[in-house]
This record gives sequence, structure tokens and C-alpha cells, in this order.
Amino acid sequence: MKLAVIQFDVEKGGVEANLAHAESLLHEQGGAEADLVVLPELFATGYFFDSTEQAHALAEPVPDGRTVRRLEAWARETGATFVAGLAERAGSSRRPAHYNSAVVVAPRGWLGTYRKTHLYYEETQHFRPGDTGFPVWTVADRAGRPYRLGVMVCFDWFFPESARALAAGGADVVAHPSNLVLPHCPEAMPIRALENGVFTATANRTGSESNGRETLTFIGRSRICSPRAEVLAEAPRVGDAVLTAEVDPHDARDRQLNAYNHRDDDRRPALYASYASSGVG
Amino acid sequence: MKLAVIQFDVEKGGVEANLAHAESLLHEQGGAEADLVVLPELFATGYFFDSTEQAHALAEPVPDGRTVRRLEAWARETGATFVAGLAERAGSSRRPAHYNSAVVVAPRGWLGTYRKTHLYYEETQHFRPGDTGFPVWTVADRAGRPYRLGVMVCFDWFFPESARALAAGGADVVAHPSNLVLPHCPEAMPIRALENGVFTATANRTGSESNGRETLTFIGRSRICSPRAEVLAEAPRVGDAVLTAEVDPHDARDRQLNAYNHRDDDRRPALYASYASSGVG
Repeated sequence: MKLAVIQFDVEKGGVEANLAHAESLLHEQGGAEADLVVLPELFATGYFFDSTEQAHALAEPVPDGRTVRRLEAWARETGATFVAGLAERAGSSRRPAHYNSAVVVAPRGWLGTYRKTHLYYEETQHFRPGDTGFPVWTVADRAGRPYRLGVMVCFDWFFPESARALAAGGADVVAHPSNLVLPHCPEAMPIRALENGVFTATANRTGSESNGRETLTFIGRSRICSPRAEVLAEAPRVGDAVLTAEVDPHDARDRQLNAYNHRDDDRRPALYASYASSGVG
Repeated sequence: MKLAVIQFDVEKGGVEANLAHAESLLHEQGGAEADLVVLPELFATGYFFDSTEQAHALAEPVPDGRTVRRLEAWARETGATFVAGLAERAGSSRRPAHYNSAVVVAPRGWLGTYRKTHLYYEETQHFRPGDTGFPVWTVADRAGRPYRLGVMVCFDWFFPESARALAAGGADVVAHPSNLVLPHCPEAMPIRALENGVFTATANRTGSESNGRETLTFIGRSRICSPRAEVLAEAPRVGDAVLTAEVDPHDARDRQLNAYNHRDDDRRPALYASYASSGVG
């Protein structure tokens, strides 16, 4: 199957412009022919909101908001499945709840939502921490062959439990919409892929955003990595990019490392207990 | 405090030669003035045993075997604490149990033993899987200031739970005696240090060994890494090396990442439950 990752500079608040930008990139470099297309975190709204009010005004219901509707149209038109980050408005109108989410949208429509578990920096002021855990979806490629798709968002990478939980759920591919600011994630992703035996597809953004008090610069360097820690494709630090890679999900399902070692059977959860049952510290 | 890592080519079965080799390196590059000295996995015996009989013949009781006695002498003479890998013979003479272990030896004597949790390749045929979990020792530097020391051995790095468990136990420094064959560990260690907020000191070996059927080549590249993912010192792929780095354990104790994020409090164990309670798969 073919993975695609789209990297670009998002305009804060310019939802229609960002959707149009993403759509135009989708038709470059064969992105639209991929089986799975990953877009950045908050790709339609921008990231570094001036205020909670601004974040909430840009948030939308799922699946009835315009971003999911647009993703559904793209999925129908291209036959690809999409994973994309958006600002989700849930709850009731009197008691709304906002999440930094990523949706999975297939040609047959919206499949589900992951809500970011580990919020970063001022996100903590605008969004609730995710409550979905780490679901894994069974999705079909264009040939109808099923594969298992997990999602994590940006800073989730920092906590090894995120990708680990997705591997525990049987993920072959981890889609990773991101707005990375810190420098280390590109180097971490081959390790996340290796230690869990999964493909990873990090779609990061570029450019800078100010919230009126501070400016953040996003580091680009989107990457597709293999279960053997190979970097199959990498984008530059700045500029639009469409990355693609042909991958075989069976490479993620071969859990034997050599004649004596097995990724899963060699784990010894009883000896990790102090860690599993308590906070680190 | 000062960390030191000693890398060299071990001669299989040449215990006295290996002890002498390690001792001579200890007195180069200021290694003997360090607060903590880390030696490779199985540094006195070699690694790729021809047979289980050979492995067991080279194993020794702890702390009454010659390797711990020699480490105790070095610790007394230099004032340093040592972490070193050895083949441990435990159990009774009628029912011996052999482990791929690492000992912690301070100037006041042997402090304890870690038994390797995740055995690699043919080690599985010669040793029992470790049963100690991931203990963390409180050790004093030369100035009498306490720091927290955890140990993992070689392939333990592959499982993120190992360093995570040590961080959960409060480790400031993770000593990592190794005989690395696979290529990815050097790149993984800054990530292990970062994600856990610990210093790591990987003492790898160089050279090759045959078990009569197959030859393994060890990759050197010993590394000392910081909680900010810095590589503070690195050895070449081949050749003897003594690495040192001045580190402040308080850098590992500052668990706040920024005004909004905390390494430990941001963990969400309830959402990792599927992972903690089941094997990956």
C-alpha cells in the first residue's frame, strides 16, 4: 500500500485557504493516489491561538463540521483514506467540550476520532485532554486488503506509551498529525517505529505563528519510517512537501526479530509493574 | 558528578586478560577519577559462548566471585562506584541458575545485582531471564552527595519499558553495560534519555566473536547522553575508549518541561491500560 504525508504552512484562522492549500497539494506528487493520506495537526485552523475564545470559535462538530465534510469529499473523489487533525467541538451547546482531535475519514465516510492524549504547552488552556485512549481502526486499502490504523497527535510521540498502546491494539501504521516545535521528534520516530514494529507517518507543518505574546516556529521534517527504523521519506525543514512511500503492512505483522526473539512475547509486563501502576517519579 | 564509560575488545574466556585490560584503561583519560564507571556486558568473560557448558564454566557467584572481588578492589583504590556486566552463577550447586547480570560495586563493597530482563539471541539458551525487575540504588558521589542509579543491560534498550521502569524508580543515571550487535541503539539512547529525563551511560564493546558456527561483530559507539537528548560523549566504532562527562543529577530531577508540561504528571496510565495489561499484538 502507499502512504502519503502532506506538509505545509497553515494560516491561522484561514480555514478555507488552508483547505484549498491542502487540496492542491493532494494532487501533487501522486498524493491523491495513495491509500492513506496524513495531514498535519489542526491543519485547517492553525495552532497557536490568541485566546481560548479564538480556539473555540474555530472548532467544529465531528462529523458534521466543514473539515470532515471536505475530507469526506476528498476521500470519495480520490479513493484514499485520510487522517487529519482538527479542533473538535463536542458536548452540548450549553456545556461544550473542545478537543485537539484527529479524524479518520474513508471513502465511505467518517470512521472515527482520536482525541489527543498529551496536550502540549498552551493547548492545555484551550482543549480538554483526550478521553479516547488509543483506538485502532481496521481500514481497507484500494485493493480491499485490510490493514490496522492507529493515530497519535504531535506531542504524544514524547510518551513511549502512545505508540506502544497503538501497537498493543495491533496497528500496522501509526498516522501522526503534528505541529512540532521541539527538535527531537524526527529522530525519535524511527525508534518508535522500530521498538513497536510499525510504520509511522508524521505529517508536520512549517512556518511560524504568534499568539500576540510569543511566536512558535514549526520544524517541518515530516517523515515516513519503517519497522526496521528506516526513514522511507523525509521532507525539508521549510516548504510544502508531499511524501509518499510504498509499504507492506505484513512487515509490521512479522513480530519475530530473530530465531530467539519476539517483539511481543519477550515483553515482561510483570517486571514493569512499578512503572505501570505508578507515575514516574 | 563525573560519569565514565569504558569500551574495549573482550577476549572470550580470557578473564584475567580482560580484567587487566579494563584496569589499564581505567587509569587512562581520568576514568579512575570518575564518580561512576560503567564497563560492558560480560566484560570479563566474553559473550558469544560456544556452548552452554562454556558459559556456565565461566560464570561465577556474586559477590564471592573473582570479578566482583576485583571490582571491589578497584572501587576501594579509586573511590569510584562501578557498574559492570558478568555471568552470574546462582542457585545451589545441584541446581545452579545462571544469569546475564550487572553488579553495582561501591568503595564500601558490592551493593547489588541486576539480572538482564530481556535476553538476546543465543543468550536465551545459556541464561535464565532476569528476575530482579529494575531496581534503583541510592549511591553517593565522591563528595557524599546521593544520586539514584539504575541499570539495564544491552538489549533491554529495545523495550522502552526498561528505562521507563528505572525512571519510575527515580533513577537519575541509567548505567547500560552492553555488547551491541544491532545498529540502532546509539541513536535510540538520546531518545531514551529524553523521554525519561535521565542520563544514560552505555558502555559497549568492540571486536568480533565466533561461537564456532557464526560470528558476531560488536558496534562500539558507546555513548553518554543527557535528559535533553544531548550526546555528551561518544566512542568510535572500533578501538578502546574511555569516555567521561560531567553531569548534574539535578538535571534529571527537574521534571517540568515547560510552564504547562511535566514529564510524570502528564502521563495518563489509565489510557495506556490496554498496553499495560496485555501483550502487544
